[in-house]
Amino acid sequence: MSKQQSNNIDLETLRHSLSHIMASAVIELYSGVKLAIGPAIDNGFYYDFDFGTATISEGDLSKIEKKMKEIISRNLSFERRELNIDEAVALMKEKDEVYKEELITDLAKTGVTEVSFYKLGEFDDLCRGPHLERTGLVPAGSFKLNKVAGAYWRGDEKNKMLTRIYGLAFASKQELEDYVALMAEAEKRDHRKLGKELDLFVFSDLVGKGLPMLTAKGATIRRELERFIVDEEIKRGYQHVVTPDLAHLDLYKKSGHYPYYKESMYAPIIIDEEEFMLRPMACPHHFELYLSKPHSYRDLPMRIAELAKLYRYEQSGELTGLIRARAFCLADSHIICANPEQAKSEVAGVLDLIDFVIQTFGLAKGGDYSYRLSLGDRNDDKKYFKNDEAWETAENKLREVLTERGDKFTEAVGEAAFYGPKIDVQMRNVMGKEDTAFTVQYDFVMPGRFALNYIDSDGQTKEGIVVHRSSIGALERIMAFLIEYYAGNFPVWLAPVQIKLLSVSDKHHDYCYKLAEELKALKFRVEVDDGNETVGNKTRKAVNEKIPYILVIGDKEVDSQNLNIRDRGEQKTREISKEEFIKEVEGKIKNRN
Amino acid sequence: MSKQQSNNIDLETLRHSLSHIMASAVIELYSGVKLAIGPAIDNGFYYDFDFGTATISEGDLSKIEKKMKEIISRNLSFERRELNIDEAVALMKEKDEVYKEELITDLAKTGVTEVSFYKLGEFDDLCRGPHLERTGLVPAGSFKLNKVAGAYWRGDEKNKMLTRIYGLAFASKQELEDYVALMAEAEKRDHRKLGKELDLFVFSDLVGKGLPMLTAKGATIRRELERFIVDEEIKRGYQHVVTPDLAHLDLYKKSGHYPYYKESMYAPIIIDEEEFMLRPMACPHHFELYLSKPHSYRDLPMRIAELAKLYRYEQSGELTGLIRARAFCLADSHIICANPEQAKSEVAGVLDLIDFVIQTFGLAKGGDYSYRLSLGDRNDDKKYFKNDEAWETAENKLREVLTERGDKFTEAVGEAAFYGPKIDVQMRNVMGKEDTAFTVQYDFVMPGRFALNYIDSDGQTKEGIVVHRSSIGALERIMAFLIEYYAGNFPVWLAPVQIKLLSVSDKHHDYCYKLAEELKALKFRVEVDDGNETVGNKTRKAVNEKIPYILVIGDKEVDSQNLNIRDRGEQKTREISKEEFIKEVEGKIKNRN
Repeated sequence: MSKQQSNNIDLETLRHSLSHIMASAVIELYSGVKLAIGPAIDNGFYYDFDFGTATISEGDLSKIEKKMKEIISRNLSFERRELNIDEAVALMKEKDEVYKEELITDLAKTGVTEVSFYKLGEFDDLCRGPHLERTGLVPAGSFKLNKVAGAYWRGDEKNKMLTRIYGLAFASKQELEDYVALMAEAEKRDHRKLGKELDLFVFSDLVGKGLPMLTAKGATIRRELERFIVDEEIKRGYQHVVTPDLAHLDLYKKSGHYPYYKESMYAPIIIDEEEFMLRPMACPHHFELYLSKPHSYRDLPMRIAELAKLYRYEQSGELTGLIRARAFCLADSHIICANPEQAKSEVAGVLDLIDFVIQTFGLAKGGDYSYRLSLGDRNDDKKYFKNDEAWETAENKLREVLTERGDKFTEAVGEAAFYGPKIDVQMRNVMGKEDTAFTVQYDFVMPGRFALNYIDSDGQTKEGIVVHRSSIGALERIMAFLIEYYAGNFPVWLAPVQIKLLSVSDKHHDYCYKLAEELKALKFRVEVDDGNETVGNKTRKAVNEKIPYILVIGDKEVDSQNLNIRDRGEQKTREISKEEFIKEVEGKIKNRN
Repeated sequence: MSKQQSNNIDLETLRHSLSHIMASAVIELYSGVKLAIGPAIDNGFYYDFDFGTATISEGDLSKIEKKMKEIISRNLSFERRELNIDEAVALMKEKDEVYKEELITDLAKTGVTEVSFYKLGEFDDLCRGPHLERTGLVPAGSFKLNKVAGAYWRGDEKNKMLTRIYGLAFASKQELEDYVALMAEAEKRDHRKLGKELDLFVFSDLVGKGLPMLTAKGATIRRELERFIVDEEIKRGYQHVVTPDLAHLDLYKKSGHYPYYKESMYAPIIIDEEEFMLRPMACPHHFELYLSKPHSYRDLPMRIAELAKLYRYEQSGELTGLIRARAFCLADSHIICANPEQAKSEVAGVLDLIDFVIQTFGLAKGGDYSYRLSLGDRNDDKKYFKNDEAWETAENKLREVLTERGDKFTEAVGEAAFYGPKIDVQMRNVMGKEDTAFTVQYDFVMPGRFALNYIDSDGQTKEGIVVHRSSIGALERIMAFLIEYYAGNFPVWLAPVQIKLLSVSDKHHDYCYKLAEELKALKFRVEVDDGNETVGNKTRKAVNEKIPYILVIGDKEVDSQNLNIRDRGEQKTREISKEEFIKEVEGKIKNRN
């Protein structure tokens, strides 16, 4: 995978300059166009135009691109000059650039008295800069216009819809080509696309946005993940519980979550004049469960875990397949610890578990995932609970864990939870983009709010510490990640259908079904294709379904009782005995391959 | 188990007469008491009194009982007479019986012109009768006052709170004693009581009424049940899916559930100005999933199944532990069938599955459970969808299934769902009370509303039929049932802790832990009690926890490497080799014993 973007400031300058060059090209090509804004972005640039009554489609991009190349070849210089606000407004009025005029007027309101303009040939634009010296400095083949979309002026849907033209731009032709190839691969792997192609999940407008429905195949992957993590956690001493998905509003007031999470919670449900909330997190439920009986130091650490269904409000524009949904199921846990030392040892145990889980999926530490120590900010008492000493201890404990494990990590001030610091496990997706996949949080606030106490060996009542953690994250999200990571080629243990039997003709149906029953009895997931088609067609379909093992059953197989296996990704088939095959599949499932 | 109640009409007469005898006794003992109502009930009778400022407690019951016996020994006759409404009102006014006066006034409004009174010595009461001829006919020892409770006049909390005195009454002393013994047993087995004693589930006021939280032990039972039913259903060709617990209100309007279920649904949740409902049933979700792609006759029957979390509003007074909760998880399924004949065969398959499930728990058909065919009513077009022909076909198909299986069944007109007839599996609880545990419904309405169509072999688009069914019912409810059925003595496969190791002294701890690890590696659920107590105390605790296998580990066990087992319910222990023991436990788990 090539690097997605260079941190070089020149790249930003290049992209910004290209946005001006594009605007200049558009003005030369279309009359009466009005300009809005045109910034550099992550992978290139865009510019928002008001084309009036004209419409622009992706078919027009090559024409604009051609004109841009012409402007570049003119090797024009970007000329900066300063105007005072009144001159700038007058200029914009004169040119009838209403959007620019509004921007400058607003700048004036904030006390700005002077603004800069950049001139490029005839094209003259309000702009902070900087820009390249001359258009000739744009590396050959380093950009490409790629998308036309609608965008409201200033992002407000009450305003006019403008036309946004996007371009990709990188430091060289090679980098652009690498990026385009990566994008194509990412698009092929997009879990929303594969989810549809492989029949894993669907949405229904009648059910509602952001509420995925897993088909039998998608639910199979989820069930395998669910049982895998529950069994592994139980093995590691977690106590799996089941608590309700809603609770009285008072619970979230007690926990102090309400003011912080109000915006991402759904509206309350009134039951018998009381207000209930769909839960956005499970910790308060687990604390109430802990409080249902008295505890001694011998009960600690108490690792309360749950596959907790959580509900968070996401704006409809933010919803993204299984990655960002309005309901999801988190493999959650809250570990009640006796003291900071125990908390430290529990955090280490959690990191071990996360290592085990991620490595089961075939990911490697350092490359695919890394650690970030997210710290509080002693100067921000609004965002963080005030207790400098507790923050000091907590942050030190987490730092010690990572250091003693010999793990590399970065530190990020101001990324902590309101109740304490955390270690974030950062994973890279197919696009190379880093995101927080799992977190381990050290919490010294909730124990006080909920009186999460225990009787110590000296007979004294003491307050505990809570470690919040996820292991496999949200099931929906890890599914999305794995769909993209495997490009739908799930390892045998996760594959919704592990084996597909293709009958050569009608007379092989019975044998197919008998064999299918035999394999199903071993808990293998098997399908039979006994359709009225050629084996070639059946094979093509099964290949598209990304089935790990395709077994063609014809006369030879019925006679020899051997199996003719076509492995996923292979063109050739191999012949082995049924017993060998069963042993192989059993081994893969057992070892989660 | 003795019969709970005789169907003999005399029992009702006896109970009703006893309620009058009790009222007469109360009036003799307390001055100024006003009478409300006093009917016969399931296991006896009650009477509601207004004691004015006096309070009555259970301590007063023996005094009232004594007075009742005295009245019985007087062998008074019940004398019936008719009064016209005006005379009756005048009489009640004269006696200042305000409640009776209100009752008679209301009767007058319905057009009644004459009412009957029964006189018993000095006691004179408005009553429809019938009564025993004389008090001497009450069998000796056949009744017992057992409870005092508050009850609002006419059940309306805006009215005055009256005092309700309950009595038990049966045809003979023996029957009363049997009933009292059964009640005591039922009380011991009450899942709410055992749930607390065995640490299976708890409630929290802050979380909310009717929202149980399963502890690790309770969740273990649930998880075993969950995996058992999911695996069994998949084996039987069900496709397990996962759909969201809420949906747009429009979905329930489309299904037509909304007007029928509105009262038992929660208030809507507003998200982006749209109304979402916590789902009270999963069928519409499954239909939307079916509709996500076109289907051919080859896809049918399509058995869509889910462990579906459902939310139903229950009045706070109706909430009963895990039996009646505000959220529960139903092992639900909707089978899309091509035609009535296929639906019939699917219903038979469902009954097979239910047989298998119930018999796994050790229950016997006929004794513990039986079938009821719940029919529609052609004359009730409000309650039932109008389509006489479809009702006829559907009811015949269900009747044929039961007849062909040779199952005994009763028929109940007016017990169907609004969309079709059903077979109810009726189970008896510890008290002998029959209740619907599972249902199989035949639905010819939803396929039309949702256009649940398929392409038949003749190329025509045809409408399917839906079979709605549960297999194990709601997980919470079956848990409650099983807790009571087993009296907490769960079979090994369901027991939250299967094996408990008790160390005789400190020096046996290491061996205990080593052995525990060994057994846990086999996925046995094991606990170690290494507390600083005598083996006798530890054993007593483990016996109270109803652990199937208690293993005492002392010098002898460490030396011999054999195990000393105390089986649940046994006083004596037995010695066997570790290998034999492991084989035994593995066998029990595998065979679900």
